[in-house]
Amino acid sequence: MRIVRYRDGDAARLGIVEGDEVRAAGGELFGRLLPEERIGALSDLQLLPPVAPGKIVAVGLNYLDHIQEDTGARQPREVPDEPVIFMKPPSSLVGHGDRIVLPPGADPVHYEAELAIVIGRRARRVRREDAYDHILGFTCGNDVSARNFQSKDGQWVRAKGFDTFCPLGPVIATDLRADDLAIESRLNGEVKQSSNTKYLIFNVPFLIEFISGVMTLLPGDVIMTGTPAGVGPMRAGDRIEVEIAGVGTLMNEVTAEA
Amino acid sequence: MRIVRYRDGDAARLGIVEGDEVRAAGGELFGRLLPEERIGALSDLQLLPPVAPGKIVAVGLNYLDHIQEDTGARQPREVPDEPVIFMKPPSSLVGHGDRIVLPPGADPVHYEAELAIVIGRRARRVRREDAYDHILGFTCGNDVSARNFQSKDGQWVRAKGFDTFCPLGPVIATDLRADDLAIESRLNGEVKQSSNTKYLIFNVPFLIEFISGVMTLLPGDVIMTGTPAGVGPMRAGDRIEVEIAGVGTLMNEVTAEA
Repeated sequence: MRIVRYRDGDAARLGIVEGDEVRAAGGELFGRLLPEERIGALSDLQLLPPVAPGKIVAVGLNYLDHIQEDTGARQPREVPDEPVIFMKPPSSLVGHGDRIVLPPGADPVHYEAELAIVIGRRARRVRREDAYDHILGFTCGNDVSARNFQSKDGQWVRAKGFDTFCPLGPVIATDLRADDLAIESRLNGEVKQSSNTKYLIFNVPFLIEFISGVMTLLPGDVIMTGTPAGVGPMRAGDRIEVEIAGVGTLMNEVTAEA
Repeated sequence: MRIVRYRDGDAARLGIVEGDEVRAAGGELFGRLLPEERIGALSDLQLLPPVAPGKIVAVGLNYLDHIQEDTGARQPREVPDEPVIFMKPPSSLVGHGDRIVLPPGADPVHYEAELAIVIGRRARRVRREDAYDHILGFTCGNDVSARNFQSKDGQWVRAKGFDTFCPLGPVIATDLRADDLAIESRLNGEVKQSSNTKYLIFNVPFLIEFISGVMTLLPGDVIMTGTPAGVGPMRAGDRIEVEIAGVGTLMNEVTAEA
């Protein structure tokens, strides 16, 4: 199933995508969703982030080729023996088609294509073999990062926490295994990152086990799993896409703060 | 006004403290609250964290004497020219009287007494002279920190993000200025930290300006403002208190994870 969240006046509504069409979603996002009446074409809807997470946990340094590339930010170059986690605030979320706004003083601002996990069921000390029981599905994420602040602060929350720095979408794809999915980013149509989730150092079940051993994960929480090599700067007027096989393409345009 | 949140069966309810008594709170937490019928004695209520924040933003290294002490965690020893921010997950919250649970492998686990700001009104690029218009009030926080993970990860989210690692309470004190408040922690009754919010390197209005220039702050969001010198380890069976003048005393007992 492919789940979208869209704006309907002041309300956020859920839909189920069937081909190019969207049907209203009856039932419960974290229970059972059922397609109901036709809403319209997917392209006509103003999409929101497909979920409203209570928290966004992100994993740094989870593809070997990214660890080895020079991002311009001061960071470890060794392969960690455990995931390094950080957080992005819910206020940084935007949906497919929304703008990424470059704040004054943030330079350079990089895209980072990432597979994002959406939690479906409370997870506390979950073993990796049970991880998929706690996953609702997957979406595309962009862990937008201001490298100058990342280097300066040491802690990554400011660099990665600005409003609009967490595009997510377009859909939550359920009934999907994440162990072999092509992941790509394109800047103004040119491929910049091209990898596969099979190259994750810590894979999805491992991450669920590790993170749920630290903090209770709740339905709707999002885990950003890390980015492969090929990150680079975005400038006002750019168009950045993150595509994951079996999920779809998340597109955002970049603008400078007024 | 002194606002509490307490458990009533499965529900969370708001109350207003008057002396040792609590009255039901009518109206809106982020609008106007009015005392209604008597609920009972404060000591008879099972207190919750006084607010349910969408995000908890925390400030590192914000008292000079704490920067200069050796916590055992690898961290900068220089006075930063801007606040260093990180986040704690909402899942780490516990209330006054709840237990801090030491997870396996976390050693040592330190207390950190902190003034916590509760946001009352949306804040986006707020100037410091307008900061108090966006503050609902203040409470006591304990930024519980596993120093071994803080050193190992570099990022502080795991070390400070375990379940129960963010005690908050007992009340939100409104109509309070935070520029000269005594702050103290006591471990098993012995004073360990004793300072004053006047020694904050970046004071409350500055923090609101700085953080709201990065991310939109929403009603209920919490900012932990940093800890003074005197941090140290807690062990199972310990009792840790954080007292802030004009707010009250947050008490938690420490236990080992079963």
